[in-house]
Amino acid sequence: MSSQSIIHLSLDKPTRAVCMVGEEITLDLIGCAPPKCSSFSIRSSARVSVNIPQIVPVTTNKEGTNIQLLPCEFMDVLVKMTAPSPGVGEDKVSVQYYLPDWKVPMATAELFLTGLEVSLDVDINRSGKVEAPKDKWTKKDWVWGPSGWGAILLVNCKPNGHVQDGDKNKEFSSEEIKTLSQMVLSVQGPSCVLKNYRLLLYTSEHEARKGRVYRRQAHNSDTFDLVLGPGWHTHNFAPLEGPLKETFYVEATEFPSATFSGLISYSVCLVEQSENSLIPETLAYKDTVVFRVAPCIFLPSTQRPLQLYLCRELQVHGFVEWVTELSKKNNSNVVSVYEDPHRLGRWLQDEMAFCYTQAPHKLISLVLDTPRIPDLEDFSMKYSLSPGVGYVTQLTEDGKVITMDSIGNLMVSPPVEAKGREYPLGRLLIGGSFYPSKDGRDMRQRLRGFLYAQQVQAPVELYTDWLMVGHADEFMCFIPTKAKGENDKDFRLLLASPHACYQLFQKKQKEGYGDMALFEEVREDQLLSNGREVITINQLLDDDILRKQNDYVEKCINLNRAILKRELGLLDRDIIDIPQLFCLRQLSNVPSAEQTEKLYARPYFPNLLQLIVMGKNMGIPKPFGPQIKGMCCLEERVCQLLEPLGFKCTFINDFDCYMTEVGDFRACANVLRLPFAYRWWKIVP
Amino acid sequence: MSSQSIIHLSLDKPTRAVCMVGEEITLDLIGCAPPKCSSFSIRSSARVSVNIPQIVPVTTNKEGTNIQLLPCEFMDVLVKMTAPSPGVGEDKVSVQYYLPDWKVPMATAELFLTGLEVSLDVDINRSGKVEAPKDKWTKKDWVWGPSGWGAILLVNCKPNGHVQDGDKNKEFSSEEIKTLSQMVLSVQGPSCVLKNYRLLLYTSEHEARKGRVYRRQAHNSDTFDLVLGPGWHTHNFAPLEGPLKETFYVEATEFPSATFSGLISYSVCLVEQSENSLIPETLAYKDTVVFRVAPCIFLPSTQRPLQLYLCRELQVHGFVEWVTELSKKNNSNVVSVYEDPHRLGRWLQDEMAFCYTQAPHKLISLVLDTPRIPDLEDFSMKYSLSPGVGYVTQLTEDGKVITMDSIGNLMVSPPVEAKGREYPLGRLLIGGSFYPSKDGRDMRQRLRGFLYAQQVQAPVELYTDWLMVGHADEFMCFIPTKAKGENDKDFRLLLASPHACYQLFQKKQKEGYGDMALFEEVREDQLLSNGREVITINQLLDDDILRKQNDYVEKCINLNRAILKRELGLLDRDIIDIPQLFCLRQLSNVPSAEQTEKLYARPYFPNLLQLIVMGKNMGIPKPFGPQIKGMCCLEERVCQLLEPLGFKCTFINDFDCYMTEVGDFRACANVLRLPFAYRWWKIVP
Repeated sequence: MSSQSIIHLSLDKPTRAVCMVGEEITLDLIGCAPPKCSSFSIRSSARVSVNIPQIVPVTTNKEGTNIQLLPCEFMDVLVKMTAPSPGVGEDKVSVQYYLPDWKVPMATAELFLTGLEVSLDVDINRSGKVEAPKDKWTKKDWVWGPSGWGAILLVNCKPNGHVQDGDKNKEFSSEEIKTLSQMVLSVQGPSCVLKNYRLLLYTSEHEARKGRVYRRQAHNSDTFDLVLGPGWHTHNFAPLEGPLKETFYVEATEFPSATFSGLISYSVCLVEQSENSLIPETLAYKDTVVFRVAPCIFLPSTQRPLQLYLCRELQVHGFVEWVTELSKKNNSNVVSVYEDPHRLGRWLQDEMAFCYTQAPHKLISLVLDTPRIPDLEDFSMKYSLSPGVGYVTQLTEDGKVITMDSIGNLMVSPPVEAKGREYPLGRLLIGGSFYPSKDGRDMRQRLRGFLYAQQVQAPVELYTDWLMVGHADEFMCFIPTKAKGENDKDFRLLLASPHACYQLFQKKQKEGYGDMALFEEVREDQLLSNGREVITINQLLDDDILRKQNDYVEKCINLNRAILKRELGLLDRDIIDIPQLFCLRQLSNVPSAEQTEKLYARPYFPNLLQLIVMGKNMGIPKPFGPQIKGMCCLEERVCQLLEPLGFKCTFINDFDCYMTEVGDFRACANVLRLPFAYRWWKIVP
Repeated sequence: MSSQSIIHLSLDKPTRAVCMVGEEITLDLIGCAPPKCSSFSIRSSARVSVNIPQIVPVTTNKEGTNIQLLPCEFMDVLVKMTAPSPGVGEDKVSVQYYLPDWKVPMATAELFLTGLEVSLDVDINRSGKVEAPKDKWTKKDWVWGPSGWGAILLVNCKPNGHVQDGDKNKEFSSEEIKTLSQMVLSVQGPSCVLKNYRLLLYTSEHEARKGRVYRRQAHNSDTFDLVLGPGWHTHNFAPLEGPLKETFYVEATEFPSATFSGLISYSVCLVEQSENSLIPETLAYKDTVVFRVAPCIFLPSTQRPLQLYLCRELQVHGFVEWVTELSKKNNSNVVSVYEDPHRLGRWLQDEMAFCYTQAPHKLISLVLDTPRIPDLEDFSMKYSLSPGVGYVTQLTEDGKVITMDSIGNLMVSPPVEAKGREYPLGRLLIGGSFYPSKDGRDMRQRLRGFLYAQQVQAPVELYTDWLMVGHADEFMCFIPTKAKGENDKDFRLLLASPHACYQLFQKKQKEGYGDMALFEEVREDQLLSNGREVITINQLLDDDILRKQNDYVEKCINLNRAILKRELGLLDRDIIDIPQLFCLRQLSNVPSAEQTEKLYARPYFPNLLQLIVMGKNMGIPKPFGPQIKGMCCLEERVCQLLEPLGFKCTFINDFDCYMTEVGDFRACANVLRLPFAYRWWKIVP
């Protein structure tokens, strides 16, 4: 807005005014109108548009505007400069006043205008190009959706972590600088007028902590000066000498969170300096743009895998070999990650997730890490990341990662539609205790707040506290399929089903195979160290305690089944029940001091739900079920369920990997997947 | 949701299940279907509705549902209890299986259901009555707008301040209890089944701090027990003996703020106790309702005054007498407030505002106080408040009130429409420095955050830091008018205009009155002590410094004029320019240590904008302008501008009140006004 919002004309002498391009100014032509004059005409030069709201439209052509004889009651006469003036007072409006029935004007008021233009512009149309909008007031709003607007900032995801706040300049490679969003400041107008003004670029102290604004030190230089950033929320420009055009480069320092909406505004002020030291300066014009920091987007297992990060530990060699093999078939890259001294490399999937973030000008894949050791400086994985893959640390309140805080407790659904709302990037699935209970375990507030704040994958809370590991991926899994027909979905949800397992074993018992046993192929020492023993179908079906435990697990899974059906808009036909048994045990993955009386569920045999999808190939933990006619009946059933959908099932023999610690081999792998084609800013959250 | 989301039928024996009323359950009738059977029929009892999504509609009549012969590929068969069962297993579904071309069923599967109902209900339809919605899932959302839903909580605004957090019970009068929102819990079903469950009412720890849930100690008792509140986020009920119906009374402890969205959810859980100590309990059902805390709504000066609170200080007796007189004419009540030892009573308007808050069942007018002394225990005004008027303290970060934090720096516009958006409760106008500058003064973050968080009166930021007092009411004022015609508004904005004042004086000079003087009627000692002297029109027009100072003020006001036109959708015809001069001085209302070099504007003569509107009567500070033909030309001009709108102008002679301290007499009065008829929840913010 400009301080020139109204100009009073005079008949005594021409009025002179400086105007900001695009600002509508009221012309007070009644104040000086000679008595008895009943009408007026207006003429303006080409860069001045005249608008009288009661007369629509006022035509302005190359020669300017010429409005003849209007009655004097038209109070609202608005003028607007459409371009900056080349010299002082080079634009003009003249008003002629007429007595009733006279054809020659009896008086003339003249206004000489000098147009200045100050504009802060960004990629407002999300086209990848800096553009000025038609209506400059739209710049201070950020609007979601397909017809929305507003520019986007990317978080600095460089694996070498954050810049120090004190650094006032920084080197960017020509590739890196393309990640930053551009913001162009332009000032135009006659130099002799501009010299009376000073410029100021600023944001709030709070917002300054969330973004950094750089400018190039010199033409073609790779060194950039920090203009605004944490601790620097105001930048005073050198006194204006004349027109100016400058490009700034902006990046965010963090993703949206519970305490940060993701919006950062920058304003430029043109301040008129006072000639007289006793009169304060005045704000002549302010232009504001707002950016939104792009969210961190998580990917469901139904997206095509691009790269596989594997922990090459000895214990999981069977798994590693298999996955490497499969990756080759699928043309996806295998990246090895060696054991990390700082944490158990095995829990790769538990502590970090591959995500991406996107602006119209750039997409960045990144690792979101919730490390157990908060001041982790050297982590081998950082250095194994492929070029261009970012790395961002997301700490918990106290730097500790409890099992519910780990990224393994986070799943993502494929794109769904539920209760009339579309979720084109799917929904986040967060596990927790669901209702307050003694010993209840939940994801803590900061990580939960972070997930909700990303906005584009509206979270759903699941009940997972009944599981020892507490992660939803122990009982569910999404697999990609081809939709057949209009009402078919292009994915299926696999759910662990004790009922389906009992049904299968009962059927086998009826068929006369009750004496066939589970775990027959497993070495005795392996069984012993894992608290299992060879057990026949008959024995298993007679085990009343195991049955009750599985009835309990069934209820817990069914509770989630109801939530998933409702929140993801699933029908029963979209869900496949995978036979799986559980047993209840005391917590084994906590120090003995944290032991509680409550029993938690863990898989009774290697968890069939912990499968890895590599295109049409599936790697599934070998369940070691009863061999019937030379084939494991559990494997047979899984194949019956999945092969009609086009999958090829490979069962991976790695009993130790599954049993020696809670969790299955899937946790040793992390998959970088193809980002969604759908752009997040087209969503209306 | 319920853990009974899928029921597997069996041909061997009838299946028995407990069902929650309203929960859709999948019936697995394929699992037990005899081989070769190609179709089935379903029959159900009256309280069970059957839904097969592919067959629309399934008719359920008084006798229940009876669906004949469907092909077996219909996987999605859903059943739902519509009412609780009177006894165990008294509801039934039977499925009959048919071989192709056979008319008699070859097998039958039976399901005996026991329906339980658990429901937490509130005034979801905003009708003032507790009602259960058709779709119970809507209860966990709160939706704005005319077709929205969700119940509303009122903040406890009792003048005796907050209850102590430790209090576990409280007395409420029968009148007081009507302020609280009701929440009804009902549990229905056969007692012998309910005995296996326990009930739990809870919220999050965070939300528990924002609201209190009470229940009556005994029938007709006035004592209420605290069930949930700060420090108590979970309530375990006594073991269930049978059906239950209980009413809870809920109040909020604070208004929405930057750190509190205003939403509070309460959930009731039905937990199935395990018969076996080795099996954990299971959540059988959870029902959640969400309340929104009603915002604090501010009222513009265009709303009809109901009560006037006046500070009876000696210095302002002229003003007090006049206002008392006027109030009688307008049938509004005058309440006296005597000087408060803790603060200057005169600044009544600066530190407190009359607001209101509203739920469908109750509207409360209240005083929002931003006291200078944070631990204010006895404030005389609290005790002068009329019965039913609430009192809420809103502290700043450090308990200090700077001039920008005071409520006097807050104005409210009448209902407006701007840029295609309606603001039926007007918009808040917050004054500040508008751009970062040395010595810039702004409303601090907490109060600003509070104002934005109310959501229903979207704030507009104005530039007021150029004024010594820093309050927008020094240069602007809204007055109520009657709209004439469709495009006319029912209010006008008065803006101080140095230009209009100079124009008036120039006209008077031309007419030969240049020797007439301002302040001629003021006593010399009064002038002396206020740094003014008698000055003629000629002298004033010759004063180049005063002219430059007023040019500066004009620019500052014009900046706000542009903002107000745009953000409130005003046209120039909606604005009336009131002649007013300003002069620049050093800050006088701060300790000398806080003095700065910058000069600030204060009115040159008593501020005509500080008028008080009492219906059609206006009390305006007497400006002591030049007497021309026996009349002050400033008064005459103001009357010319306002009388055609139907106002009667009275000029109040109280020069000292204006001059001895910065600010005008309006600050000694506070007006309780008629709340808006429009209900805030119909807005979509």
